[in-house]
Amino acid sequence: MARRPIRILGLDPGLQHTGWGLIEHDGFRLRFVAEGVVSTTAAEDLPDRLLALHRGLATVIDLHAPDEAAVENTYVARNPDSALKLGQARGVVVLAPALAGLAVAQYGAMEVKRAVVGNGHAAKEQVQAMVKHLLPGVTFRRADAADALAVAICHAHHRQSRAALAKGYQPA
Amino acid sequence: MARRPIRILGLDPGLQHTGWGLIEHDGFRLRFVAEGVVSTTAAEDLPDRLLALHRGLATVIDLHAPDEAAVENTYVARNPDSALKLGQARGVVVLAPALAGLAVAQYGAMEVKRAVVGNGHAAKEQVQAMVKHLLPGVTFRRADAADALAVAICHAHHRQSRAALAKGYQPA
Repeated sequence: MARRPIRILGLDPGLQHTGWGLIEHDGFRLRFVAEGVVSTTAAEDLPDRLLALHRGLATVIDLHAPDEAAVENTYVARNPDSALKLGQARGVVVLAPALAGLAVAQYGAMEVKRAVVGNGHAAKEQVQAMVKHLLPGVTFRRADAADALAVAICHAHHRQSRAALAKGYQPA
Repeated sequence: MARRPIRILGLDPGLQHTGWGLIEHDGFRLRFVAEGVVSTTAAEDLPDRLLALHRGLATVIDLHAPDEAAVENTYVARNPDSALKLGQARGVVVLAPALAGLAVAQYGAMEVKRAVVGNGHAAKEQVQAMVKHLLPGVTFRRADAADALAVAICHAHHRQSRAALAKGYQPA
């Protein structure tokens, strides 16, 4: 069955660095398309930083025309101030693909590790090694982009499981 | 000296209810223009809620054409999870006026109370009573909108102090 590959945009939110990674999935194989980081500097005030983050992501979406988006649901163990700061960036990150009309899925960090490495407690290095293994020819300049690619891979796996279930396959 | 009144949009962010309040300031008097609340329901998922919040605020800005915006910098004493949730809404709230090209000021809750009541520890009821006193004819259906009007009043006072200082008046 021939079908058009699905383009998935993975996003790893942060006020300073938001990683993004784009992959294609044809139902069998994953393919690396592009990656990058939208960065803002603490020298700017919050409204300008959020604006730069929004514009950066809107440009990525405009250029690469993804079909669906997946955002890492960053686990927050730190204090409420850091959580509020991260939340502000995350709100803007989730909004950008939603504004472009894309469905936006969310996955917890453990869920992403489980999907990519097979172990929800995998180390960052293991995740990066598997991202390289699963996406031949991938390059990423920053860990944020590797995390974003991992979220995109996680979403590709979940889509496929859902599609299999919808066709009547029973989970093992 | 005749000058065009400044339209200030005050915003009190929340994922469930974001209050907004619009006032005009001609350098001498404050005037109430409009108020309201953009609400989202927990039945929707986060991307849809943030999208509804963004669209609601974009419509308010489009309709009422404010010159400047001011957002309450909500104090967060609660756990990181609540802070992340509030942060996501706050990011989208700050982004909306910034996207429309408005300068966006931020004020802490104590700063707002000090500007409106003269006491940073004033009770919610005192703030609402002063909002009614300072804005003759004001109506608000929800406390969130009263808080948003209070932020707008705070911004009007701060603008005026800055303008006075710029003209060479010395603070007492």
